[in-house]
Amino acid sequence: MSSSIPARGKMVNAFNPDSLAALDPLRREAIERRTRLLGPAYRLFYQDPVELREGAGTRLFDSQGQEYLDAYNNVVSVGHCHPRVIEAVHRQMQTLCTHTRYIQEGILDYAEAMLPTFGGRIAAEGHMMFTCTGSEANDLAMRIAKHYTGHDGIIITREAYHGNSELTAGFSASLGEASPLGTWVRTVPAPDSYRADPATLGQSMAEAVTEQAWHLKRNGNGLAAFIADSLFSSDGIYATPDVLGPVADAVRAAGGLFVADEVQSGFGRSGDAFWGYQRHGVDPDIVSMGKPMGNGYPVAGIALVPEIVERFGKDTRYFNTFGGNGVAMAAAQAVFDVIREEELQANSKLRGAQIQDGMRKLAERFDVIGDVRGAGLYVGVELVSDRAAKTPDAATASAIVNALRARRVLISATGPDGNILKIRPPLVFTEADVAWLIAATEEVLTEICA
Amino acid sequence: MSSSIPARGKMVNAFNPDSLAALDPLRREAIERRTRLLGPAYRLFYQDPVELREGAGTRLFDSQGQEYLDAYNNVVSVGHCHPRVIEAVHRQMQTLCTHTRYIQEGILDYAEAMLPTFGGRIAAEGHMMFTCTGSEANDLAMRIAKHYTGHDGIIITREAYHGNSELTAGFSASLGEASPLGTWVRTVPAPDSYRADPATLGQSMAEAVTEQAWHLKRNGNGLAAFIADSLFSSDGIYATPDVLGPVADAVRAAGGLFVADEVQSGFGRSGDAFWGYQRHGVDPDIVSMGKPMGNGYPVAGIALVPEIVERFGKDTRYFNTFGGNGVAMAAAQAVFDVIREEELQANSKLRGAQIQDGMRKLAERFDVIGDVRGAGLYVGVELVSDRAAKTPDAATASAIVNALRARRVLISATGPDGNILKIRPPLVFTEADVAWLIAATEEVLTEICA
Repeated sequence: MSSSIPARGKMVNAFNPDSLAALDPLRREAIERRTRLLGPAYRLFYQDPVELREGAGTRLFDSQGQEYLDAYNNVVSVGHCHPRVIEAVHRQMQTLCTHTRYIQEGILDYAEAMLPTFGGRIAAEGHMMFTCTGSEANDLAMRIAKHYTGHDGIIITREAYHGNSELTAGFSASLGEASPLGTWVRTVPAPDSYRADPATLGQSMAEAVTEQAWHLKRNGNGLAAFIADSLFSSDGIYATPDVLGPVADAVRAAGGLFVADEVQSGFGRSGDAFWGYQRHGVDPDIVSMGKPMGNGYPVAGIALVPEIVERFGKDTRYFNTFGGNGVAMAAAQAVFDVIREEELQANSKLRGAQIQDGMRKLAERFDVIGDVRGAGLYVGVELVSDRAAKTPDAATASAIVNALRARRVLISATGPDGNILKIRPPLVFTEADVAWLIAATEEVLTEICA
Repeated sequence: MSSSIPARGKMVNAFNPDSLAALDPLRREAIERRTRLLGPAYRLFYQDPVELREGAGTRLFDSQGQEYLDAYNNVVSVGHCHPRVIEAVHRQMQTLCTHTRYIQEGILDYAEAMLPTFGGRIAAEGHMMFTCTGSEANDLAMRIAKHYTGHDGIIITREAYHGNSELTAGFSASLGEASPLGTWVRTVPAPDSYRADPATLGQSMAEAVTEQAWHLKRNGNGLAAFIADSLFSSDGIYATPDVLGPVADAVRAAGGLFVADEVQSGFGRSGDAFWGYQRHGVDPDIVSMGKPMGNGYPVAGIALVPEIVERFGKDTRYFNTFGGNGVAMAAAQAVFDVIREEELQANSKLRGAQIQDGMRKLAERFDVIGDVRGAGLYVGVELVSDRAAKTPDAATASAIVNALRARRVLISATGPDGNILKIRPPLVFTEADVAWLIAATEEVLTEICA
């Protein structure tokens, strides 16, 4: 099966240090200083990396005061520098910032407000546990899943990303072939709605899971969990709903847990539902969350059904010094309040549809656009060199991303072939922002493809 | 060897839910609500858990406005709610909070300011990498060490704690016997200055490391790294200097890296040096840091010599969404500035010596105090039921910790037997704070031991 996986080089849209000489002297100096201080494992975006100083709403500003449209940042969901979040953090920092081994109300109020949003068994009787990052959330989810099931095996989609810890990097295929997957990991194809009949996606994914779970039992002790981001962000953004139901059934039949990684798709991003898995009608055992939870304040966590953590809680304990601290909870509460009060899930649905409409209109004129898809403000635009053969066109994707950056519109690309434009702005994206994005894309396509 | 490890129950100083009925109704209700919302893996401190609302400097306040002396919190090193840190976070939050794939000056300024503090090879040509938690820092340190050496083996001290991720929990013996250590982990005794001749500690620890590294090669592929907190916090607080030099030599002879876990002992805590390993004259390959780095803002990281991350940086990449964000760096820079400007390392040395003096005077009257030791504001007071036999007395330690809590003085206990009082206040601890701590301890000892 591995022979069908294309060889990959470095990260999609990463700056290549070999082209340093082409940059202006000040930019070059900043990057050389950065490499000297931070070392070789850090990456920058774009052929001409961006130096940023300020942000407000959907806009960013560089050191010369030039304005950028942020159509990519899914951490600052309620917008860069939202005053409600700033105020909540400031107020709590002046009061108390300490950990969960003392009783504090904020963490309990937040958990109580959040639990009903998950629906199903978690809403009825679930718990929340708090970490600082999505990686920590997925790492903890899997520690608990392994402890509960007594199994080690994990099934992911073929280009999944789930974190940067040893455990989660070990089931993050998108880190590339020089970052090995664990021997206890198996992959299944993502539900590619562009190349397969959407009506068959759930069933074929479930069959693949059943097959891989069999291998995990044959070669080890069986399946602990299946984990997926329900928008399949790094696989190429596939947003067909109602795919994961049959998968969840297959996972449970194999004795594993269903973990919904909502780091990307959660908090209203998909437009259709507060949590991405709700578009699929599944009732997950564990939900992990992160990125937008504190609008940039490091806060993340999991929600889970109670029985799976019962034994874990007796055998050991979980303590995260900063996880669930009073300030983190104040930030998270403010973000949750703003998402509801400013109706950002509805805005995500509306603006996401407008972006898709705009891109589809461009597709009528530019053959390079093979497919436009997504949910809410998570839009993928797949570029192909041959529409009939659906041949991935990574070179044009890279050219568009960098040409948009030159026009100060920030997006990126994704997928195993790096040929899918990834558009994922803050949820406060406006109609004017959509217009800027589409107009700039039209200019760039005219320049590159005409 | 495992037969010599005493069986352990749950965490030292954890609230026992079986005694819920003994608490006043409001406290009981808060704890029941907490268990319902957060589940069974969370622990509270003390037989009568503390509910906190506010903090300032070394003081904490509960919901009735009662004042507590915080002689335990090593996160808020510059004091609860320090205005400089609050202001730095507030200012940066109003400007920009985003990640490391754009060029930003703050992270570079901070790394440049910090690198010289490490001395040796790291000061000369090292890099810094940023995470959100100490667990993530140790996890990343070990991912890099394993990638560089091609080995899996890790050696720790017998009661070490290094983190809550799957990897780091796998080399955190203090989590207890129901939390298994990895098959690639070996332990060595901590340098127990109370029971062995301090002059022999380095040599015998080095010999134990050599022996365990041999086992790691015999049973696997060899030693990736030795990791220790140079104050051996969870082993029982051992502060004899110049112990780790021979250990580092033994580690390198076995082909491993020396990782200094400075999450507890760093940022001036030891009084003698900015980093705890500097008290031992070693030049580590990787230094990990966390807790006090942002005074409660989730920021952590590693510093390392360049050659060990060169291949890792080519083969894969490291990205931590919140790690090294602009606000984290502003908080960290403010903390570093305050430590230097308020001369908190010197204060730690002075107040730590005063605490040790006070405890030694109490030892003249109370035989239960077998040993007083530590460095700076990290003080251990070992309690024994028989001074000649040095028999650990966990019951008295627990009684003292809880009686001090009843007097609103917050400390805890540590060590494999839970019989060592752990005193570890913010570095801004004053002479009046020392007086309150010693007077309260005297009262409690008189009550319990007279």
